[in-house]
Amino acid sequence: MTLVRRSGRRPGNQDTRQSILDAAREVFADKGFDGASIRAIAGEAKVDPALVHHYFGTKDKLFLASMNMPLDPAELVPKALSGPRDEAGERLVRLVLSVWDSPAGTAAVALLRSAMSNEWTARLLREFVVTQVLRRAIRELGLPGEEAGLRSALVASQIAGLAVTRYVLKIEPVASADPETLVRAIGPNVQRYLTGPL
Amino acid sequence: MTLVRRSGRRPGNQDTRQSILDAAREVFADKGFDGASIRAIAGEAKVDPALVHHYFGTKDKLFLASMNMPLDPAELVPKALSGPRDEAGERLVRLVLSVWDSPAGTAAVALLRSAMSNEWTARLLREFVVTQVLRRAIRELGLPGEEAGLRSALVASQIAGLAVTRYVLKIEPVASADPETLVRAIGPNVQRYLTGPL
Repeated sequence: MTLVRRSGRRPGNQDTRQSILDAAREVFADKGFDGASIRAIAGEAKVDPALVHHYFGTKDKLFLASMNMPLDPAELVPKALSGPRDEAGERLVRLVLSVWDSPAGTAAVALLRSAMSNEWTARLLREFVVTQVLRRAIRELGLPGEEAGLRSALVASQIAGLAVTRYVLKIEPVASADPETLVRAIGPNVQRYLTGPL
Repeated sequence: MTLVRRSGRRPGNQDTRQSILDAAREVFADKGFDGASIRAIAGEAKVDPALVHHYFGTKDKLFLASMNMPLDPAELVPKALSGPRDEAGERLVRLVLSVWDSPAGTAAVALLRSAMSNEWTARLLREFVVTQVLRRAIRELGLPGEEAGLRSALVASQIAGLAVTRYVLKIEPVASADPETLVRAIGPNVQRYLTGPL
């Protein structure tokens, strides 16, 4: 295995950016997304908080960057869930398959694998799923407060299981089924979790 | 870390047993459950096939032993699925939770984690799920041939997702919900995969 190295370390932006990302992963895994502050992350990275804002913008954006997440749920979730409410389940499954079947899916599978064997990555992934995906889905669909948590976690259970079965364990015929077959088969189950009687 | 070692190697049963188990894992992962034969496993372990039968009985039993599986789907699956057909989904979820919430569940979680990061374990787990669990479920419920594969793989997707969400990622409230809440919430979805319109 050969590691390619730049001959001279660039002292400026790249190193600062990287140390902010390292600090962010640590603080997010330790405190959770809600408990982590830009201020604490800047402190951990030994930089000024203004610099963190300058490089990454919001805490959400910094979180995505720290997880190497190529897609932004702030755009994707509303796109999947707006439209007729009784077809939200199918649209959600279709979105998930289009993301995971794309080149970005390779990174997502790697993240899922890593989260299964590493407690630290598992925490980051949980924070990501809960704060970036599920919370947005709850808001978008206007689910009532007391049920919203259970409903969205049940949706997560089916989506995570689809990913594990299709991309990791590769159980047939789910592994090579065409997306629309899975949308028709799984969509109504996700729909029940979203809006049906539990 | 201290490794406790027996001062003298026992030349007899234990070593033979262990080399049969090692050979079995290798052949099952390589050829799949159906393609593996006791004869090939014996050859790989350099022992007589009769000895494999003597120690482990059937190929199914040897497969369970090689995966360190404390529970036997040959007993559990029919138990969960017999009875009223329209409650099979709930019974299946209840069984899964009772197994995974028990001490045996720790081994199951370890196996799932390992299967996610190791291609070889993933193959063994897929073979286990397909040949030991899903095939038996299809037989028990008498699902029609062409649909049976898809239905049982969809059930696997929900069960795998429940395990990942509750035991690995620990997403609330699924992580600490009492089992009967999850049986009511998830059972009907599993039921649709088993017997509903897809």
